[in-house]
Amino acid sequence: MDYRDASDETPHRVPVPTQKPFHHTLSLNLKETFMPDDPFRQFRNQSPYRRFILAIQYLIPIFEWAPNYTFSFLKSDVLAGITIASVAIPQGISYAKLANLPPILGLYSNFVPPLVYAVMGTSRDLAIGNFAVASLLLASLLVKEVSPTENPLLYINLALTSTFFAGIFQAALGILRLGFLVDLLSHSAIVGYMSGAATVVSLQQLKGIMGLKDFTTETDVVSVMKSVFTQTHHWKWEAVVLGCVFLFLILFTRYLSQLNKKFFWFAAAAPLTSIILASLAVYLSRADKHGVQVIGELKKGLNPLSFSSLTFDDKYLMISIKTGIIIGIISLAEGIAAGRSFAFFKNYNIDGNKEMIAFGLMNLAGSVTSCFLTTGPFSRAAVNYNAGCKTAMSNIVMAIAVMLTLLLLTPLFFYTPLAVLSAIIVGAMIGLVDYKATIHLWKVDKIDFFTCIGAYLGVVFGSVEIGLLIAVTISMLRLLFFVGRPRTMLLGKIPDSTIFRRMDQYPGAHSIPGVIVLRIDAPILFPNASYLKERVTRWINEEEEKMVLKGHPELQYLIIDMGAVSSMDTSGVNMMSEIKNNIEIRGLKLVLANPGSEVLKKLKMSQILEKIGAEWIYLTVSEAVEACKYLIESCNGGSTIAENYIDDSATSISDDIV
Amino acid sequence: MDYRDASDETPHRVPVPTQKPFHHTLSLNLKETFMPDDPFRQFRNQSPYRRFILAIQYLIPIFEWAPNYTFSFLKSDVLAGITIASVAIPQGISYAKLANLPPILGLYSNFVPPLVYAVMGTSRDLAIGNFAVASLLLASLLVKEVSPTENPLLYINLALTSTFFAGIFQAALGILRLGFLVDLLSHSAIVGYMSGAATVVSLQQLKGIMGLKDFTTETDVVSVMKSVFTQTHHWKWEAVVLGCVFLFLILFTRYLSQLNKKFFWFAAAAPLTSIILASLAVYLSRADKHGVQVIGELKKGLNPLSFSSLTFDDKYLMISIKTGIIIGIISLAEGIAAGRSFAFFKNYNIDGNKEMIAFGLMNLAGSVTSCFLTTGPFSRAAVNYNAGCKTAMSNIVMAIAVMLTLLLLTPLFFYTPLAVLSAIIVGAMIGLVDYKATIHLWKVDKIDFFTCIGAYLGVVFGSVEIGLLIAVTISMLRLLFFVGRPRTMLLGKIPDSTIFRRMDQYPGAHSIPGVIVLRIDAPILFPNASYLKERVTRWINEEEEKMVLKGHPELQYLIIDMGAVSSMDTSGVNMMSEIKNNIEIRGLKLVLANPGSEVLKKLKMSQILEKIGAEWIYLTVSEAVEACKYLIESCNGGSTIAENYIDDSATSISDDIV
Repeated sequence: MDYRDASDETPHRVPVPTQKPFHHTLSLNLKETFMPDDPFRQFRNQSPYRRFILAIQYLIPIFEWAPNYTFSFLKSDVLAGITIASVAIPQGISYAKLANLPPILGLYSNFVPPLVYAVMGTSRDLAIGNFAVASLLLASLLVKEVSPTENPLLYINLALTSTFFAGIFQAALGILRLGFLVDLLSHSAIVGYMSGAATVVSLQQLKGIMGLKDFTTETDVVSVMKSVFTQTHHWKWEAVVLGCVFLFLILFTRYLSQLNKKFFWFAAAAPLTSIILASLAVYLSRADKHGVQVIGELKKGLNPLSFSSLTFDDKYLMISIKTGIIIGIISLAEGIAAGRSFAFFKNYNIDGNKEMIAFGLMNLAGSVTSCFLTTGPFSRAAVNYNAGCKTAMSNIVMAIAVMLTLLLLTPLFFYTPLAVLSAIIVGAMIGLVDYKATIHLWKVDKIDFFTCIGAYLGVVFGSVEIGLLIAVTISMLRLLFFVGRPRTMLLGKIPDSTIFRRMDQYPGAHSIPGVIVLRIDAPILFPNASYLKERVTRWINEEEEKMVLKGHPELQYLIIDMGAVSSMDTSGVNMMSEIKNNIEIRGLKLVLANPGSEVLKKLKMSQILEKIGAEWIYLTVSEAVEACKYLIESCNGGSTIAENYIDDSATSISDDIV
Repeated sequence: MDYRDASDETPHRVPVPTQKPFHHTLSLNLKETFMPDDPFRQFRNQSPYRRFILAIQYLIPIFEWAPNYTFSFLKSDVLAGITIASVAIPQGISYAKLANLPPILGLYSNFVPPLVYAVMGTSRDLAIGNFAVASLLLASLLVKEVSPTENPLLYINLALTSTFFAGIFQAALGILRLGFLVDLLSHSAIVGYMSGAATVVSLQQLKGIMGLKDFTTETDVVSVMKSVFTQTHHWKWEAVVLGCVFLFLILFTRYLSQLNKKFFWFAAAAPLTSIILASLAVYLSRADKHGVQVIGELKKGLNPLSFSSLTFDDKYLMISIKTGIIIGIISLAEGIAAGRSFAFFKNYNIDGNKEMIAFGLMNLAGSVTSCFLTTGPFSRAAVNYNAGCKTAMSNIVMAIAVMLTLLLLTPLFFYTPLAVLSAIIVGAMIGLVDYKATIHLWKVDKIDFFTCIGAYLGVVFGSVEIGLLIAVTISMLRLLFFVGRPRTMLLGKIPDSTIFRRMDQYPGAHSIPGVIVLRIDAPILFPNASYLKERVTRWINEEEEKMVLKGHPELQYLIIDMGAVSSMDTSGVNMMSEIKNNIEIRGLKLVLANPGSEVLKKLKMSQILEKIGAEWIYLTVSEAVEACKYLIESCNGGSTIAENYIDDSATSISDDIV
């Protein structure tokens, strides 16, 4: 029989799909892009009332879990809530200092936002509060415009306004379902960035621990070290002693809890204990009179409203928006990464878009109640998780604890030395320097490793912005590399079968004389079309050389396995017709195997399918190869070359495919 | 027999590759990225002398074709050269005006650069000269900084300096083999952009044709129209008559040549003829005395050197560099696209990187010999091609013709009216408005169509920069879409075979009860990892619903066809382990089919391979399915469900694969 004719009757035709209406494909693509999780699935064939309930539960997650909330849950959540409160209060004060803001704002920020998140959030483990890295970023972006010492009020207003815009930005991302934009910050970039930021934040604490009054506004290691060692004569030994003692205490308890889970409570209690002990020490020793800096007066009472503080004055609008977007995206990255990993431990799913809306609303609410940027930092979520939290209720408990502190306990912080706050920050930051993850990256993926290191060095030696820039750039370059240089492979036949596989991966696989089988593993688009053309030509050249050496007949057929070419644009279509022309000049025939329907459509609409000829399109590579072999034989009257190979198609076994 | 054990002895094992040293893979990737054409291939096993010759020929292409240059070639090239000269001279003058530069610079630019290109270029059809779009772009970028009327000298210097930087940039791209960066401007973006620019350029000509003295510096259609119709009282009827007559002449000859190839010569001769006739008309009618603007004095003599004109003064450095890069990349895009398409007609290859070096050197040489930016415009290459050029020699002939003009004929242009120059520009631009290509884009690829239209509208209603920005943005978004939302498909078994194919494409394909077979058609990277996780979960949900409706047993195995997953980063690796955990909670087992060696390496190094279990990795989907079916049967003691399907694996035919 003649394969070429046969291939038209063969049961395995490749159907050329009929063109679907444009709006149809468009809406399909839009759905894939913005609603891959198909949120409306649950609403199908439900009663109107049920739908209403579901809608409420969908929009306000607390209604999803609150109804089946149990007393045993409450017990765990109260315990967890108190635990994170004991961390939140000292951290709040510390991170406010880190952002050059009055300490009280740190406490405010741990009261309102957690309540909002408890209602809107989908994670059961996140504990809301300020985030050291974002605080530092906020400071380093704003100080360029306003000095917190010369014009403290304006500085505070800008911080609140930035928080406001961060909230707008985060909520917008969530509502527009652009969650995937956050995925453009690769995991490795975030690891490197956060580690770098943690290092920088820790270095900043030398100011407090050394008891220095004036300090560089730069964050890079060089200027910080200079600033520390040029003022050795200003070091306060009392501060140094306090700082180091409590830093040791915190790190030691931390170390213990890593050795053994049951010591976790020591680690959790350490910050608050340090605050109390240090404050007592200062109070008794009157160290504040000897130049040990203390927090001083903290205003009693709950968050004052701060609508009026938001400044939309043209002069500062751009900087507020820019700062808002940067800190907004960083805190989203941290919060969502943290949420996802704990959801992964406990095997439940969190909805990225809902999370963004929750973060956005809590920052909006925060910005009008004297709170600066908050998120769900990994470290605090870890405390919450280890303390055995069950639901977002633990955030409510924490908020209540903070409220009581604001109402009753603020005077107790008068004597708290800044040195111990620094110690607490360092203690929290150490954990963020994730050298283990970096080693893992080196093992698994070198480029990820370099992205990570690049971000780290960028932050430590440049600035928090430069680090971010480096991380994003490397990530984007990598994507361009993947799109621009897709993989092409030579396929060979696996002996005693009809399976064709990559010859570089399966050493046993052998080529068929007169035929070259290539596989392209990517959509053919404008960035890679001309590369692929060159690469295919090169494969043919190399293969022809080999054939000559082996004394095989020269190539007559180029079979391209299109199975993995998921789509094509016009450049791709042109590239196909160019390849066809080029190889025909060289006396080769183009044969396609297993093209997808998208590709077939494109080829048909651009009349290239006709040029290639529908009879040269096969369902599988082996069908194509068999056809070509048959034609080669019939040309040179069943010569020996063909016969060497005819056998294994005869003895071919049927256990392969796709 | 038990498949699970069997699968270890089966002839079709999937070998886990041994880790290659890092530098090895790195150098391999670098080679793929920067030298896909493998330029050093030809040097292998050659004598040192031969290598030297080859190196010379590689570096300076003229030595490749000059040796076998024949007299018959010369005849064709002389004819072609004179033809393009007759187009180049009027166009040169016109485009210089378009760039707000003295007309004489246009003639200079058609003398030196073509000579350089003839030596360095690899295209046989490109004709070098100024490029209307780049000229307009140059003007619109520079006028923001310097006014060509108030400070003409500085303006000229900046134009030359920008040309210098454009040259540096182009040569650098070529030497660093970054040619693929030009591919990031998609074909559709270029079509839209060039059409828009052509429209804008033509509109600008209303100034000349209406004989207006002052005109808007804006290029968008609105301000141009306003500027034309607010000064109707300044319209010069003599100019209008001249302009329209010769515009008609040019367009008519152009139309004739499209009707019939043999009228090509009329079209080619039209511009120069118009100049001569128009100049005569003005000279005889003394129309220049009645306010018809003429070119006036053109300095006799060849290009003066212009080293001293290059200004690297800080004040203007940034604008020169920015302008240089923008016009450099646009003219590269035009020149290389033109070169490629004519190489495609005549079936020879041009080397993108060599072309860039040639363009770069010719602009560098130009910038120090009073030439502004040149490239190989498509329209001029078309003239060259139709005039029957054989090699780059036609550029040399053109250069000589221009040289003679500079030495002897410049006075003849004194009376040439600006109106006719405008007519010539419009005549040249009309061809660039490529509505046919746009219609083709709509047919073949909707997104490409919108990219094209976006660029067009951006240029026409915004500015040449805005258009460029829009084009690049849409193209990039498309790439992000492809990387971020790869295709996943449900595979089914094609009846009476062991082939598994997309169920949406092959209606006949049916699913196997208890088993869901998915295929992922992209590398799993940070931008798509979390999407793919969600999408896979959704496939499982939907499939389980179907199974329930069909009354089939619930799913027990998830088989993922990894054939097209060309690579993974750490996010991808994590995604795999997350999927595994999630589905195991739901009582599903993860099975992989045909993973590539890169992916296997990653999975192994991250210990996920162990978790999945090597015995759950199969060479083909059907092997995997057979194993799963066997296990399902043995569980429910060969129940009917299994038997319904056991037969077609028995009768399965062996004509499939890959």
